[in-house]
Amino acid sequence: MLAAPRSAPAWHVSRWFGTDEPLSLERLRGRIVVLHAFQILCPGCVLRGIPQAQRIAEVFAGAPVQVVGLHTVFEHHEVMRPEALAAFLHEYRVRFPVGVDVPGEPGDPIPRTMRAYGLRGTPSTVLIDAAGAIRAEYFGVHDDLALGAAIGALVTEADGTLTTNQPSVQSERVRCEGGCGPVSDS
Amino acid sequence: MLAAPRSAPAWHVSRWFGTDEPLSLERLRGRIVVLHAFQILCPGCVLRGIPQAQRIAEVFAGAPVQVVGLHTVFEHHEVMRPEALAAFLHEYRVRFPVGVDVPGEPGDPIPRTMRAYGLRGTPSTVLIDAAGAIRAEYFGVHDDLALGAAIGALVTEADGTLTTNQPSVQSERVRCEGGCGPVSDS
Amino acid sequence: MLAAPRSAPAWHVSRWFGTDEPLSLERLRGRIVVLHAFQILCPGCVLRGIPQAQRIAEVFAGAPVQVVGLHTVFEHHEVMRPEALAAFLHEYRVRFPVGVDVPGEPGDPIPRTMRAYGLRGTPSTVLIDAAGAIRAEYFGVHDDLALGAAIGALVTEADGTLTTNQPSVQSERVRCEGGCGPVSDS
Amino acid sequence: MLAAPRSAPAWHVSRWFGTDEPLSLERLRGRIVVLHAFQILCPGCVLRGIPQAQRIAEVFAGAPVQVVGLHTVFEHHEVMRPEALAAFLHEYRVRFPVGVDVPGEPGDPIPRTMRAYGLRGTPSTVLIDAAGAIRAEYFGVHDDLALGAAIGALVTEADGTLTTNQPSVQSERVRCEGGCGPVSDS
Repeated sequence: MLAAPRSAPAWHVSRWFGTDEPLSLERLRGRIVVLHAFQILCPGCVLRGIPQAQRIAEVFAGAPVQVVGLHTVFEHHEVMRPEALAAFLHEYRVRFPVGVDVPGEPGDPIPRTMRAYGLRGTPSTVLIDAAGAIRAEYFGVHDDLALGAAIGALVTEADGTLTTNQPSVQSERVRCEGGCGPVSDS
Repeated sequence: MLAAPRSAPAWHVSRWFGTDEPLSLERLRGRIVVLHAFQILCPGCVLRGIPQAQRIAEVFAGAPVQVVGLHTVFEHHEVMRPEALAAFLHEYRVRFPVGVDVPGEPGDPIPRTMRAYGLRGTPSTVLIDAAGAIRAEYFGVHDDLALGAAIGALVTEADGTLTTNQPSVQSERVRCEGGCGPVSDS
Repeated sequence: MLAAPRSAPAWHVSRWFGTDEPLSLERLRGRIVVLHAFQILCPGCVLRGIPQAQRIAEVFAGAPVQVVGLHTVFEHHEVMRPEALAAFLHEYRVRFPVGVDVPGEPGDPIPRTMRAYGLRGTPSTVLIDAAGAIRAEYFGVHDDLALGAAIGALVTEADGTLTTNQPSVQSERVRCEGGCGPVSDS
Repeated sequence: MLAAPRSAPAWHVSRWFGTDEPLSLERLRGRIVVLHAFQILCPGCVLRGIPQAQRIAEVFAGAPVQVVGLHTVFEHHEVMRPEALAAFLHEYRVRFPVGVDVPGEPGDPIPRTMRAYGLRGTPSTVLIDAAGAIRAEYFGVHDDLALGAAIGALVTEADGTLTTNQPSVQSERVRCEGGCGPVSDS
């Protein structure tokens, strides 16, 4: 599932949200980067992709893993401007930094970073290793177990410490989900 | 999240289902073992734990990962005999091998393997590395991302190839969950 | 969705759980009866049907609606005896009364009430109106909105008061699920 | 749960989507109206409210029930203009008609219909009976069983025929969810 390393193109971002300083692959060297490309009017992104990215940020908060959002608008440009993104990030309480992908060359609806990475659409998730190389790319929402495994593998490869947390948003609770023990454990 | 290795006790199993030959840690050396302890009348096991173990078996089917179930009956012994387990495994289409934990010493409701591993109850999941050492133990259902990460880390540590599949049972489908692309990708 | 009334056959129950006195259609006359036929080793029952029946009992606790479970064992008879059912009801905290359907005539694996109602399998849900007539029968898990509508219709038909509660077990919480209002409601 | 009838205020709508002619309570007299107030940047609306409204429209497609959406923008006005709503309705494949609530009086962020109905925020669902009277109002997402019951009661009250469909979007499938029958039904 992890591919041979290929160099990750630089990010072309016109504006950052949720970070005091602009982010770049150079600045994040040494950390596993989970790059999450989305659009605020894409149902699969809003209903599945963004919640998964939020959980990744929360579960791996103590590990050398950085989730970075990228707003790759390739349609409905006029209603997905940065002001709309800002309201979205506020309302959905998105905790990870998000960059606005720079619009494409004249006549190209695909923004520049999305074009450089060859992404097919949204949502897309790109895993970049600690050395700055692309190791996996998923178009559409990927399974949690498989995505977790890839992140765990990259952290281990980089000799990082794999620390994880239980996410705060849980599914519907069922009895003994947290485990049920013997009444008397003599 | 991965602990320092400690030796995994041998399994005491009176009967195996879903495997032609009895399994043991020795026979599984070189593979990551996901030991899943459950009871067929434990709601957290049936509603969450077993489905997660099934997805692990499916997602990591191509990787050096083996899911092994262990029926650790510590209550309602009379109605969770092996015949009831057999019907359960058939009805729920459980695909991984399952062993029946040997009943405890006289007066001890806790079966022998559960006692040897010091498990607190069900469901419990124990991760055993390729060298046969316990590296993690979870009481209750653990988050998919975190559990996947631990498995991915252990496979990488052992120089195994991390191959993963998308599970066949999906959550409720939403539009663009599989990704939506630009109409014209010029 | 509601059919013309047809008389509901009497129940043949060998043992009741969760009620001090045996239940019968006569005793429940005036109330809408939601008869839920299940088996404790049926995945669709345990994962979907029983949780739905529990929610019905909770949501309509203040209305003239009575949920009644019926353990209609038609396979694996030897491991779904009343003792196993008792442990199941205890572990899953089933709050509504449940009757054990009397075994079928010699050579018939189908128990008597299930045979009398012509149920095709489990889970099945039968709606009986306040006059004791069958008005709907569902094989498999039915949609909550549609099932709620049928119950609401029967309560209204009978001039009953439709009181409902929010169920205590909720799905994964999302922001503003409980509603978000204007900061300043001047 | 159904309240005494009170007159439903007229709708103030600047623009309709998904309908050839403007809708009004007069035009819908004789049908049960499920008025769903939402905003496209409200997480509880997008993740829970709109999907529920879509299911209501689908489940009651054959009954005298009409789902009507109302875009009641009371915040982030500049990024939730009708053009953004149009893109949202297209991307989420919203099948029921949606009106744009007319902005409030100068200085009032609350739009006019929302103000007239006294809604506390979004999502809100208002049930209007066949005679045009408000019978229930829910702030936040309401339980499917309870909401279905109220709709079923109103249809029955109005002597309407309660026809329901199974919704096409299903939750994660489990074995025997559709029901499992005896192998031999002798």
